[in-house]
Amino acid sequence: MRVGNTPMRTVELHNDGALHLIDQPQLPFRFVVKITHRWEATAAAISDMTVRGAGAIGATGAAGLAQAAVFASESTFYDEIEAAAVGLGKTRPTAQNLFVGIAHVQAAIRRAPSIPEARHAAVAAAQAFADADAAACEAIGRHGLTLFREGSRVATHCNAGWLAFVDWGSALSPIYAAHRAGISLSVWVDETRPRGQGARLTAWELAQEGVPHTVIADVTLGSLMARGLVDLMIVGSDRIAANGDVANKIGTYSAAVLAKAHGVPFYVAAPTTTIDPHCPNGASIPIEERDAAEVTSVGGLDEEDIWREIRVVNPDSEAYNPAFDVTPAKYVTGILTERGLIPASPDGIASVLL
Amino acid sequence: MRVGNTPMRTVELHNDGALHLIDQPQLPFRFVVKITHRWEATAAAISDMTVRGAGAIGATGAAGLAQAAVFASESTFYDEIEAAAVGLGKTRPTAQNLFVGIAHVQAAIRRAPSIPEARHAAVAAAQAFADADAAACEAIGRHGLTLFREGSRVATHCNAGWLAFVDWGSALSPIYAAHRAGISLSVWVDETRPRGQGARLTAWELAQEGVPHTVIADVTLGSLMARGLVDLMIVGSDRIAANGDVANKIGTYSAAVLAKAHGVPFYVAAPTTTIDPHCPNGASIPIEERDAAEVTSVGGLDEEDIWREIRVVNPDSEAYNPAFDVTPAKYVTGILTERGLIPASPDGIASVLL
Repeated sequence: MRVGNTPMRTVELHNDGALHLIDQPQLPFRFVVKITHRWEATAAAISDMTVRGAGAIGATGAAGLAQAAVFASESTFYDEIEAAAVGLGKTRPTAQNLFVGIAHVQAAIRRAPSIPEARHAAVAAAQAFADADAAACEAIGRHGLTLFREGSRVATHCNAGWLAFVDWGSALSPIYAAHRAGISLSVWVDETRPRGQGARLTAWELAQEGVPHTVIADVTLGSLMARGLVDLMIVGSDRIAANGDVANKIGTYSAAVLAKAHGVPFYVAAPTTTIDPHCPNGASIPIEERDAAEVTSVGGLDEEDIWREIRVVNPDSEAYNPAFDVTPAKYVTGILTERGLIPASPDGIASVLL
Repeated sequence: MRVGNTPMRTVELHNDGALHLIDQPQLPFRFVVKITHRWEATAAAISDMTVRGAGAIGATGAAGLAQAAVFASESTFYDEIEAAAVGLGKTRPTAQNLFVGIAHVQAAIRRAPSIPEARHAAVAAAQAFADADAAACEAIGRHGLTLFREGSRVATHCNAGWLAFVDWGSALSPIYAAHRAGISLSVWVDETRPRGQGARLTAWELAQEGVPHTVIADVTLGSLMARGLVDLMIVGSDRIAANGDVANKIGTYSAAVLAKAHGVPFYVAAPTTTIDPHCPNGASIPIEERDAAEVTSVGGLDEEDIWREIRVVNPDSEAYNPAFDVTPAKYVTGILTERGLIPASPDGIASVLL
């Protein structure tokens, strides 16, 4: 996708092991590319959310393990790879793609006949993993084109755009495809408290691409649905269980229940790598609880364009910050993947896809 | 209620026409009492939300008209009263109590046989109106005691505490009554974007009173209900139509739909002055749309305790900020008033009460 007029990817691993990451906490106010070389720095970029979003995390995890392979010493090579795989896997607990990405590079290393070849194979595998993510997202966009009519008003939650992947995105990919195809549509962007990924990242992405959009406080969505102002909703996912239950950013579940109550079609867009066949249902998806400070403090630019963190909650009060929730399959109209739209099925979705 | 150990009211009209108002935008970080004398300053305190909340706005509107009576010149007395009534009535469009409060003082002025007596009568009427509000809220708390069991986990949205009234509050009054009666309970406090009245005001009130509570991002509520962590929900209201439809802070409607979907009882607590018998249903309640800057900017204290307004939305993006929504009567389990709990009725509630 474009930043200004420059085509960019969210995560880009160079052959020398340098990893270029768009520094997402600085968006939408500053556009900065962070470069890491050591897997430890890459792991830190995942856990501090320099990189966030299922696909981007997966590609970054894969790239991190490739960096370990590039920079590990000959004598302790396989031990270092093992330590890096464990360390990268601990950065975020919910994203399925992280584990898929790490496993993909691990397999390439295991298959290589020598350590020098393993270094090359690891980089190539991580790059191929990223390319596959971008291709899957582009295909999601193509398959999603049929969801829109001229003038469609689409709601989305959090950021499942290209910043959450390597390119194109999941939930936003059909919107970009439709916009580029000349279909006129507009987007209601949930701000997505506590971290504001909608207000900051989705709004920034849509503005770069010229898609008409309006940011709303999350609590406004139900009322807009009641007033007939939302035609469909598309969100992404961090992990989809075999029965079709969907883990995604906190608030997705509420939005899905509201969509059901108002007869608004509710789609989940995700590459099939997001589906975890070993996870029978939503109850078995681990849900990350993050620091309450994300609720009690907010960051942004003051009038002089200086970054400030401010307290927005009564100082004596506790806060609770689960980062994800699980939306049962019965609330999902269909899952949009690179293989097409999988309608809701009482048999679950794993059997359809895998 | 108490601030530290000092009993206070939100709005207090003195006999000389001085009106003491707790400056709510400065809470929870600074406790400041603002004093007005002229009705124009009082009207500004309503429209800039120094005072907010249905009951507090009503008492402030009444006090503002009493100030007009105290300070109007003899020769243009009735014209000035008329102008003040119009000006005060224009400050906020949604709160029913504002119009009731103004009309109450207007009637007292009209009944008075002379201008000097009208000045006294106006102040006495405004004070009586405030006392009646406080008494009604205390009675709401008494009647609401039966809603709780030991250990009840109550959710609330926005601030319908004593800061929203003259004293005690509506939605929080039963919580205070139960806490003082030794019933152990805890409160989930919706932060209530965009202005954060939950995170700032409800959390501050509950902390002053020592009631255990936890602030959550608004989007967390549905997920907590799905996990069985919410036993009941109580909110306030800015206006209740004759059929029982409820106008309240944006997000109330979403919370009510979620409560219904999870079998969580959803109560609205409001003095009967909130009921507008001339309003047949929610569709006829005017809904205020406020400045989009309330969504795009947030205020709070930085690490050095300096107040900062920061931008939290992509600078190129539009935002939309309806301040209220309407919850149809079918989502409301019961309306808790100073006359007791009125259960939901297909005939509406006006017939029961009025």
